[in-house]
Amino acid sequence: MRVSFSETDIPLPVYADIISAAKRLKGKARRTPLLESKLLNDQLGGRLLIKPECLQLGGAFKFRGAYNAIEQLVQHGASGVAAYSSGNHAQGVALAASMLGVEAVIVMPKDAPKAKIENTRGFGAEVVLYDRYFEVREEIGEKIATERGLELVRPYDNADVIAGQGTVGLEIIEDVKEMGLALDAVVAPVGGGGLVAGMALAMGKLSPRTQIWGVEPQGFDDTRLSIKSGARMPHGEGESSICDSLLANIPGELTFALNHELLHDIVTVSDQEVLHAMHHAFHYLKVVSEPGGATALAAVLAGKVQLKGKTVCAVISGGNVDGEIFKRALESS
Amino acid sequence: MRVSFSETDIPLPVYADIISAAKRLKGKARRTPLLESKLLNDQLGGRLLIKPECLQLGGAFKFRGAYNAIEQLVQHGASGVAAYSSGNHAQGVALAASMLGVEAVIVMPKDAPKAKIENTRGFGAEVVLYDRYFEVREEIGEKIATERGLELVRPYDNADVIAGQGTVGLEIIEDVKEMGLALDAVVAPVGGGGLVAGMALAMGKLSPRTQIWGVEPQGFDDTRLSIKSGARMPHGEGESSICDSLLANIPGELTFALNHELLHDIVTVSDQEVLHAMHHAFHYLKVVSEPGGATALAAVLAGKVQLKGKTVCAVISGGNVDGEIFKRALESS
Repeated sequence: MRVSFSETDIPLPVYADIISAAKRLKGKARRTPLLESKLLNDQLGGRLLIKPECLQLGGAFKFRGAYNAIEQLVQHGASGVAAYSSGNHAQGVALAASMLGVEAVIVMPKDAPKAKIENTRGFGAEVVLYDRYFEVREEIGEKIATERGLELVRPYDNADVIAGQGTVGLEIIEDVKEMGLALDAVVAPVGGGGLVAGMALAMGKLSPRTQIWGVEPQGFDDTRLSIKSGARMPHGEGESSICDSLLANIPGELTFALNHELLHDIVTVSDQEVLHAMHHAFHYLKVVSEPGGATALAAVLAGKVQLKGKTVCAVISGGNVDGEIFKRALESS
Repeated sequence: MRVSFSETDIPLPVYADIISAAKRLKGKARRTPLLESKLLNDQLGGRLLIKPECLQLGGAFKFRGAYNAIEQLVQHGASGVAAYSSGNHAQGVALAASMLGVEAVIVMPKDAPKAKIENTRGFGAEVVLYDRYFEVREEIGEKIATERGLELVRPYDNADVIAGQGTVGLEIIEDVKEMGLALDAVVAPVGGGGLVAGMALAMGKLSPRTQIWGVEPQGFDDTRLSIKSGARMPHGEGESSICDSLLANIPGELTFALNHELLHDIVTVSDQEVLHAMHHAFHYLKVVSEPGGATALAAVLAGKVQLKGKTVCAVISGGNVDGEIFKRALESS
C-alpha cells in the first residue's frame, strides 16, 4: 500500500500505517491529554492547546515510534535491537525493548544529558558512549547491529517510527473534535523531522485545513534550508544550542520527502526564547519541558507562529532535562 | 438524601453527590490522566500511580469543588461569591466564577505565593489581602460576603465542595479498573481535609478495600491529632512549613466527621521530604508540584505508606509554586 518516493526508493509511510500504529500502541503508550491555560490564552489573544508528550512513557514522544517499530521486528523474529540517539529515542527504544522482552544496545553521545543516559540504562539497555565531535554515530550503530545480529532502529528515517509518531497527530485531532474546535495550526519541534512528518500525515487526512509548522533551533535549521532549496542539506557549522534533542545534521530521506510536501513553514528559535518557553510551561501548564521539547511553544510565544484569533496546538515533545538547565529556565523572564 | 451528623447538624455529602458533581464538571474540569514511571516503580518495588491534579484548571484540584458549588449557587440566583484561601481555592473559585459569569472576591494572605495572588487576579477576581498572623480570614470573608451580598464558598467545610473534590477519587477508580488493577491504597495531601474526605466517599462505595491515607506537613497535623483524640483540635504552635497550601489550623466540621470515619491513617512529612518528592515529580513524572501538592508522594517515597508489592495511587494536588522554592527542590537530592 505504500508509495515509493525520491532518490532512495524506500517506501514512505501512509495514513493507514498511523492507524495500525495506534492499534499497536493502545494500552502500551500513554494517551496524553490536551492542556490549556486561560491566563496564557488571555495574554496571547488566541486559543493555545498543548500536547504534553513530556508525559509520555520515557518522557518523550519517541516511545511511540520505537514501540511501533520494535513490536513488528519482534513479530518477525528479532531478538534484539540497536539504536543511536542523543537521548530520547534511546529511552524510547530501551523501554519498548524491555516491554517486548528483547535486548537493546544504544549508541549515545558522551555529552548527552546525564538523566537521559541514566534512564536509558535504567530501562535495561546497554549504552555505548561515543564522541559526537570525532565519531559518526550511524557507523557505530550499524557496526554494532551487524556484529551482534541486532536490528537497527533509526531515530527518524524509518517508516514505522514515523507512523508511530503520527499517533500524536491522531490524538490531537480526536480531542480537538471532541472539544468542538477547528484547528488552524499545529506546531512541532523538528530534529530529524519524524514527529512533524508523522503528524502531517495524520493531519493531511483528518484535518486538511490545519497548517503544519515545524520549529528548529537557530543554527540547526537543516530542514528549513533543505525545504527552501528543494534538496536535503546540512545546517551551517559553528553554532551551539541548548536543544540537545534537535541537533540532527541533515534531514532524513523519508522525513524530508514527507516534510517537503506537507509542511506549511519552518521557523527557528533562540536559546533565550526556548528558556522563556520552558518557564511558561512550568508556570502556566505545570509540566516539565526540555529545551528541544519547548521549541514549538517558544515559536508561538515569540509570535513566529500567529495565534491571535486562532486555535493552535503546540507539541511539547519531551521533558528529559537536567536540573541545572531547568534552573536557567526558572531564572529567565 | 443526606444524613446529618455531629455537633453541627450540617448535612454531610454522600456518594450520590459525587456522581452529580461529576456530571456538572464534565467538559468543564480537566480529566487528568494517571501517570506512572517504570524507573520509579523498579526502585520502589511496587506500582505507584500518580494523579496529577497540578494539571487541573487553575493548577490544583480545587477547581472541581469550587465549580461544583458555584454552579449550584448560580442556579439558585447568586450573582457573586466570596472566599478565603491560601491560594489554590482562590484560583479555583476565581476561575469557576469567571466561567459562570459571576463576581468573585477573594481574601488571601499577604504572604501567599506571588503566583497564586497574580493568577487569582488574572482570573478576574478582586483580591483582598490580610495578615495571617494578626487577622482571622473567616471573619473577613464573612464580613465581605454579608456587606456585598455575596455567597461565601468555604474552602472545605462545604458539602458541595467536598463532593466536587470526590470526583478525583471517582476518576482514579475508573482508570485503575480500566487498567485491570486493584488499588491497595490512595494517598492524598490534607489541609482542611476536603480532598481526602471526598475521595474517601468515592472509594468507600467503589473500592471499599482500598485504604485511604492522608498526609499532613510536620507540625500541622491537626487532622491527625483530631482523629486520634476523637474531637476536632488545632495543631501545635511555633512550627513552620513550606507547604503553604496545607496550613489549616483545625479540621473542618464536615471534613472531620467524614475523615474520622473513613480514613485508614494519617502520616506527616518534613520539608526536606517534600522537596525530595518535588524533585522526583520533576525527574520521573515531568510534572510541576508545589510543596503541599507533593506531600502524598513524599510519604510514599519516605516509606511511610507501604508500596512494596502493592499498587498505590498518590495525588499530586497542585502545582502553583514560585520558581525560588522550585529551585530548592531541584537542588535537593
